[in-house]
Amino acid sequence: MEIIRTVEDMRAWRRAVSKVALVPTMGNLHEGHLALVAAAHQQADKVVVSIFVNRLQFGQGEDFDAYPRTFEADCEKLRAVSVDALFFPTEAELYPRVKQDFNVEPPHIQNELCGMFRPGHFRGVATVVCKLFNIVQPDAACFGKKDYQQLHIIKAMVEDLNLPVKVVPVDIGRAEDGLALSSRNGYLTAEERAAAPRLYRNLTVMRDSLLAGNNDYAALEAAARADLEQAGLSIMWKSARADTLEIAHAGEKHLIILAAARLGKPRLIDNIEVNR
Amino acid sequence: MEIIRTVEDMRAWRRAVSKVALVPTMGNLHEGHLALVAAAHQQADKVVVSIFVNRLQFGQGEDFDAYPRTFEADCEKLRAVSVDALFFPTEAELYPRVKQDFNVEPPHIQNELCGMFRPGHFRGVATVVCKLFNIVQPDAACFGKKDYQQLHIIKAMVEDLNLPVKVVPVDIGRAEDGLALSSRNGYLTAEERAAAPRLYRNLTVMRDSLLAGNNDYAALEAAARADLEQAGLSIMWKSARADTLEIAHAGEKHLIILAAARLGKPRLIDNIEVNR
Repeated sequence: MEIIRTVEDMRAWRRAVSKVALVPTMGNLHEGHLALVAAAHQQADKVVVSIFVNRLQFGQGEDFDAYPRTFEADCEKLRAVSVDALFFPTEAELYPRVKQDFNVEPPHIQNELCGMFRPGHFRGVATVVCKLFNIVQPDAACFGKKDYQQLHIIKAMVEDLNLPVKVVPVDIGRAEDGLALSSRNGYLTAEERAAAPRLYRNLTVMRDSLLAGNNDYAALEAAARADLEQAGLSIMWKSARADTLEIAHAGEKHLIILAAARLGKPRLIDNIEVNR
Repeated sequence: MEIIRTVEDMRAWRRAVSKVALVPTMGNLHEGHLALVAAAHQQADKVVVSIFVNRLQFGQGEDFDAYPRTFEADCEKLRAVSVDALFFPTEAELYPRVKQDFNVEPPHIQNELCGMFRPGHFRGVATVVCKLFNIVQPDAACFGKKDYQQLHIIKAMVEDLNLPVKVVPVDIGRAEDGLALSSRNGYLTAEERAAAPRLYRNLTVMRDSLLAGNNDYAALEAAARADLEQAGLSIMWKSARADTLEIAHAGEKHLIILAAARLGKPRLIDNIEVNR
């Protein structure tokens, strides 16, 4: 695996190969990321992973400095899944003027859902992903469905700015007990970790009930909330149209139920698709 | 010359050739544009011109509908200078959702100089140029120095978003009497047209005087203003650092003097570089 630290070297490497799939990450890799790499191998003969802890997408009070940096362990994992190149730029390489002057400004969805609590977060995500696309020039890029709002925003950005990249959504990687894989899970105590899978369990109950013809979404949500609060998870939901993330009307065919739950220190997110 | 109307066809054409230089225009072509085409031929073996009257960059009170559309005459001119492909998309092709949701947001310079009078203009320019770059994927793109602020913003955008395109600045095309070529010149009456070259004449006087060691910029500006007002040109100036467009300090080595003059209906712009 080639480790590439500059934009110029990345471009030179890119020119020498034909099809490339990119997996953008902030490092601290787990099985979920490796599933993205596996999906990337399906898309192109060369796979590039980027590791860059992107200051732009951290808000006030979000601890950029404390974000786990585990470079050596990450490299080992990436070599084991046959990644061809790791793009690992410094901050000075991606933000040479310190301040990013030109930003990709997403529409209002950036301030909804998770964006309500993280002003500027999705602008920072969109901008760095646009930069990474321009540097690596991948044919395809893989993003997990766990960060569903992020995936939605990136798909919309690619369409709207005509970026020549195929966005490949990848199913959520889960622990055996159903908990969605996330670097945030590392912040859970043992007790919290034991309670955490209830989030997904409740999502599947809601989905199965909707698929069985139950249309009383409010009652389903209330029952799930009661179960989760009992276990210490304070929960926020939104059910939305899967394609636009706009409010779902009764009888919507393709729903996504998005959930965010505070459990101890971390805020866990998960979601489930309901296709009726 | 191939005439290409869809993003998909443009991409297919692009894939079949190696090096491409792009000249983005809004049509209504004159000699200045053809000089851009000549510069493009120096950059790549294939030259693409785009014609798209971009609604996004028109402000309130700026007449998008009245902008001259001269497609047949434009095609004739482009064929005569051996353009390989003309990208001529409809509005529905570039803005399929009508509203452009994701915008490239330039920094504060977008609201200075010409931007003071045209809120949103440079956001619209940056966004459509970013889209055109993503669609045509040129190796190089040529822009005239006449729209110096636009050129500055595009150069900065390319650096800041890491767009894989070389921006090629092209000298201002001028009529024999010195007037900078512009589609706006068509709005001048015969009398105004006769007065218009004074703008450039005064710019050259200022430059030559500065090069000769005169440092009283304020006096130079006042003298030029008096001469221009006598001829009916109401003028705004800014002398700036050529690289950043920030305020020039005394003794600045690389200056640009930017001028905008109202003459009858149109607002003419011109500029001159001073390298000491």
